[in-house]
Amino acid sequence: MKKKILVMPGDGIGPEITREAVKVLEQAAQKFSLDFELVDGELGGAAIDKHGVPLADTTLALAREVDAILLGAVGGPKWDTLDPAIRPERGLLKLRSELGLFGNLRPALLYPQLAEASSLKPEVVSGLDILIVRELTGGIYFGTPRDTVILDNGERMAYDTLPYKESEIRRIAKVGFDMARLRNKKVCSVDKANVLASSRLWREVVNEVAKDYPDVELSHMYVDNAAMQLVMAPKQFDVIVTENMFGDILSDQASMLTGSIGMLPSASLDSNNKGMYEPSHGSAPDIAGQNLANPLATILSVSMMLRYTFNQLAAADAIEQAVSDVLDQGLRTGDIFSEGMRKVGTVEMGDAVVAAL
Amino acid sequence: MKKKILVMPGDGIGPEITREAVKVLEQAAQKFSLDFELVDGELGGAAIDKHGVPLADTTLALAREVDAILLGAVGGPKWDTLDPAIRPERGLLKLRSELGLFGNLRPALLYPQLAEASSLKPEVVSGLDILIVRELTGGIYFGTPRDTVILDNGERMAYDTLPYKESEIRRIAKVGFDMARLRNKKVCSVDKANVLASSRLWREVVNEVAKDYPDVELSHMYVDNAAMQLVMAPKQFDVIVTENMFGDILSDQASMLTGSIGMLPSASLDSNNKGMYEPSHGSAPDIAGQNLANPLATILSVSMMLRYTFNQLAAADAIEQAVSDVLDQGLRTGDIFSEGMRKVGTVEMGDAVVAAL
Ligand SMILES: CC(C)[C@H](C(=O)O)[C@@H](O)C(=O)O
Ligand SMILES: CC(C)[C@H](C(=O)O)[C@@H](O)C(=O)O
Repeated sequence: MKKKILVMPGDGIGPEITREAVKVLEQAAQKFSLDFELVDGELGGAAIDKHGVPLADTTLALAREVDAILLGAVGGPKWDTLDPAIRPERGLLKLRSELGLFGNLRPALLYPQLAEASSLKPEVVSGLDILIVRELTGGIYFGTPRDTVILDNGERMAYDTLPYKESEIRRIAKVGFDMARLRNKKVCSVDKANVLASSRLWREVVNEVAKDYPDVELSHMYVDNAAMQLVMAPKQFDVIVTENMFGDILSDQASMLTGSIGMLPSASLDSNNKGMYEPSHGSAPDIAGQNLANPLATILSVSMMLRYTFNQLAAADAIEQAVSDVLDQGLRTGDIFSEGMRKVGTVEMGDAVVAAL
Repeated sequence: MKKKILVMPGDGIGPEITREAVKVLEQAAQKFSLDFELVDGELGGAAIDKHGVPLADTTLALAREVDAILLGAVGGPKWDTLDPAIRPERGLLKLRSELGLFGNLRPALLYPQLAEASSLKPEVVSGLDILIVRELTGGIYFGTPRDTVILDNGERMAYDTLPYKESEIRRIAKVGFDMARLRNKKVCSVDKANVLASSRLWREVVNEVAKDYPDVELSHMYVDNAAMQLVMAPKQFDVIVTENMFGDILSDQASMLTGSIGMLPSASLDSNNKGMYEPSHGSAPDIAGQNLANPLATILSVSMMLRYTFNQLAAADAIEQAVSDVLDQGLRTGDIFSEGMRKVGTVEMGDAVVAAL
């Protein structure tokens, strides 16, 4: 049966990196006899320019209908002065929420070929392979009430709400434990249970879920300590599972430990493994349109799509292998370049992965 | 006039590191002809054991009355199974809140003598000198409502509230700008204005305050990006000013960049520069009572006290110099030990600082 994929190039470097990823997807489809139909849609600034909103209803309808979504990146200075309610990132948040994409998988993996790129000492990060499982549709990102009000004394006050329901915690905890079973069977749940009511419920429910995974080792860590441990001894972690805001912060911190955020893909899954796939990095408007961007994170996002949504493990593995091969060949975009390697552009890198496939 | 200082040794290594810091304080008082009266009080586990609560009313009354507080550290496994409402850290939070200690100063400073200790590459961190200014009495730490409830469908839900008033933001922003004037005149305000209502007000008010500091350069950064930049290029920062929870996470991350959290003091100030001073590290119950703990962070907290509450700059400088001198002499406690240095215990280190003074 033909599977449908919505491709949303987005803003900045989004279009050029997505183009390379689509080339790789098509090559993989041919090689492994997979049948995909690709449709295009706008998100973020591109959607604002075309439809006046960061996510048009027609695009959302399309997003609901397809089996998976490939996203480039959204945002840029052009739209930064807009009202927050219609900024590019609102489109992304709405898509996550409307599609119920609660399970955000963000690997922080150090490629041996790029060990030099990290700002950390080699012995601290060599072999680093962490999976951050971030809750993506709950917590303070979407909690209500949230407002700005004027107090009796005339001053402004603004507030947000951080709510978590048992069922929301349970389903993301399960993702964490399931992922750990495919890896090193260790889950570290990160919270701030010494301060937050929501974190105390988080910890309770994670402990309940853990009973169904006696083969997985569970630990709990406060978020401030987790931020320290990620700097001091990041290799102690296998899977980290945490709530939306803590996951936002820690996953960015963890991906930067590798020194090559241009290499890191991500997946956002619903309860049926329908997913949105995108690079962990941003839209890098400063280098957009110059054939300088690294397309590998987006290409690896295609690999994650084949693995998690389409269950095509051989095709997913083949793409990862192809990426590893081009690194072995010494090809590097500017962001991961080092002495003695061959500097290439976005297109050349994409072509090389297609060839290696 | 005689100034009164409340000394709260707390738990774990608290008593032994506080003892050394008091020795240094007494030596400084003698040398610079300062007159202090020291009184003792319990906080945290020590207070639970003696009074049944982590902060007794009598101790709080004493804390209100004195000019400054020197704190060791609180918490430990002995009290970890207690109800969250009476755990050691509740005493600390109550003290911060009741005394209005809204301005938390947490320096992340790399001592040239200890450059090796960092898990980051020397070129990334050498010369690192960041001051994190964290709002300490507002936001999600104290916001109400906060509760755990049962929903109609029978499941549990818990929630917290993150509120900020204009006046709370204004006063901490001023601390940030004032501190920047004493340093490199750069403030980076960290928020999540693309998601949170409270962060949008935060950014607005910080921009308003900035108008009174035309000589200070202001930038804004999202918290996830800040966590990345602290790993990738921490030396770009001078002063970081941020809200309570983000400050908790980022200040711990930043202090760990130095590799020697055992060296870092902190101050928590009210609007009259009355303050509570404590090391940035925790109570380390695993090494408590063994003369292994590093007393230098607590000793440097005394220096901060002399600087910020008592305006005794010469005495404050002298203590910092004495600490630098003992490092130059090659003295190291276990946490900062490296080949070729002389390993010493808590007491010996304290004695050495007293002698250097
Ligand atoms: C753009 C922003 C709203 C988003 C988030 O905070 O979730 C981004 O930082 C991310 O991590 O995908
Ligand atoms: C003990 C805990 C409540 C406290 C906090 O979160 O503020 C600590 O982590 C700190 O930073 O002083």
